[in-house]
Amino acid sequence: MLVAGTTRTAEIDGISAAGADSDLLVHTPSADAEIVTYGEPIRAPVVPVSPSGCPTPAVVTRAVKELIGLDVTVVDGGLAEPTGAPTVTVGARPGDDVREQDPVSTAPGALAAARKFGRSIPDDEVYLAETVPGGTTTALGVLRALGEEPVVSSSLPQNPLALKQEVVEEGLQASSLDPGDAADEPAVALRRMGDPVLATITGLLVGLVEGDTAVTLAGGTQLLTAAALARHAGIETTLPLATTTFVADDDSVDLRAAARELNVDLTVTDPVFENRDHPAMNAYVAGEAKEGVGMGGALALADAAGIPMADVRERIVTVYDRLLDGRESPEPET
Amino acid sequence: MLVAGTTRTAEIDGISAAGADSDLLVHTPSADAEIVTYGEPIRAPVVPVSPSGCPTPAVVTRAVKELIGLDVTVVDGGLAEPTGAPTVTVGARPGDDVREQDPVSTAPGALAAARKFGRSIPDDEVYLAETVPGGTTTALGVLRALGEEPVVSSSLPQNPLALKQEVVEEGLQASSLDPGDAADEPAVALRRMGDPVLATITGLLVGLVEGDTAVTLAGGTQLLTAAALARHAGIETTLPLATTTFVADDDSVDLRAAARELNVDLTVTDPVFENRDHPAMNAYVAGEAKEGVGMGGALALADAAGIPMADVRERIVTVYDRLLDGRESPEPET
Repeated sequence: MLVAGTTRTAEIDGISAAGADSDLLVHTPSADAEIVTYGEPIRAPVVPVSPSGCPTPAVVTRAVKELIGLDVTVVDGGLAEPTGAPTVTVGARPGDDVREQDPVSTAPGALAAARKFGRSIPDDEVYLAETVPGGTTTALGVLRALGEEPVVSSSLPQNPLALKQEVVEEGLQASSLDPGDAADEPAVALRRMGDPVLATITGLLVGLVEGDTAVTLAGGTQLLTAAALARHAGIETTLPLATTTFVADDDSVDLRAAARELNVDLTVTDPVFENRDHPAMNAYVAGEAKEGVGMGGALALADAAGIPMADVRERIVTVYDRLLDGRESPEPET
Repeated sequence: MLVAGTTRTAEIDGISAAGADSDLLVHTPSADAEIVTYGEPIRAPVVPVSPSGCPTPAVVTRAVKELIGLDVTVVDGGLAEPTGAPTVTVGARPGDDVREQDPVSTAPGALAAARKFGRSIPDDEVYLAETVPGGTTTALGVLRALGEEPVVSSSLPQNPLALKQEVVEEGLQASSLDPGDAADEPAVALRRMGDPVLATITGLLVGLVEGDTAVTLAGGTQLLTAAALARHAGIETTLPLATTTFVADDDSVDLRAAARELNVDLTVTDPVFENRDHPAMNAYVAGEAKEGVGMGGALALADAAGIPMADVRERIVTVYDRLLDGRESPEPET
């Protein structure tokens, strides 16, 4: 299940690399949903790339979907632009800048509706994934509101942590919150300091656990934040998280310690992108993007299905070439 | 692709068997989409059955999906109740009673948006299906407005043709249309005498053909009406239609003659339900339901994949039992 949505926090200069420029970021989640579903954008006007040309991790998830036939359900976690992907509605609306006083007024409703939806899903196993530019900043905001250790990675090679902290401090002030004020109140933390995607994911996570569906968090520190939110909602079961080596090796975070603290079991999969010199992969090796759109979960599923990583890389090239077919190829700066 | 939506025409007494009573009909398309997607209702409060207890053809399509792994995309063709199935939006809204003057004001917009969406679908092959209670009456209205031969089947064992004709005559009068007045104007026929599902299907059909995707119409006389609409939109290529023996053997219509007239190639698949004495199938043998939710297309795909019909029937029983698990089993009157 891929939750796709937006927060205007992403428009702050230097926060996110999930779009070629700040005007295009708003299309990224809609395009990601289409790329995973159809293999290419249908209604979205862009193929999401970072400012340096690094393609969206949706390419990786789509490649694995083509290899092992994943069933994908996209949930609208506050999309701001139309998508041609089929979506489930839980009432989430685009999130405002966390520096506003009440940026995610739909968070409590989306949390409740997603929880109910998650509880009713009959599947035995679900991987939960996200696409929301600016999502690590809102994750930081939520962790601070909950009073948890702030552990967030970045889609940029240099994690702009000082900027994120500044944004979050401003948000806490605007919301009249001190760190820890929203402990045991995930809906408050999400509404005041989060984004609609994280609210939706947290609702799904809690509902799926309650409905006895095995859930794996497929992503990096945003999904780890969903685990923290679930703890504050009273969920005690061990939660698995499947991510990439790019997040696990990120020097700006200690993912393993944070996972241990939250009783989260880590699966880290290395796609060995350095073995293939290709514009679809080089920027990842240089530290960009790292995760997103369920990339780490998709790689773990491919691995579990016995697909060699060389085959995954080959398919990534195929998906990438099809995506860029007829478009000017972005020039990665490595 | 399953287009799911509503028309208030279905509320006219005696028009449709696609719900246990007229209050429940409005949930049928939302529930059908969920049954095909998940195997059971998620948000919809009912399992759609006819007044006599005949289960929705969604059971058959779901059974085939489980056997051969169909990819299903649900398009919102004017749903009046929430669905937990992921849906694509083309701007269709619930249709009013065709006896109103302008019952489907969203038809031209949905037709255009669905056409654009259909053109952008990268798949090689698509089966188009519908779920809309009352849809054969609106199909009759559209055929009359186009000036085509009126050929419509029914979900009831006795096709209430006199009632449908009366409803359609009233609708033509309310819209100040004589038969044939909407020739070569599918948007007018759909807006004044149709329903939002048929508008969406016609748009998809035209767009898919224009986008060089192979399309099969998966259904009965409503899908045949979509072929007629496509002819009036200038589509000349031969169109395949896959339906059930229940429609092909319906004495109230001459499906073969109508198909020939429209240059439609018929595939008729017999699930041989009389070989299995079971409440999921007996009512079909007695002439109820006949088609819908892509049943005929699903059966054709199962057949083409080499699945014996006995296996399809066995899986129908599994899906049916799971659906009725914990609910009072409807008592079919055969």
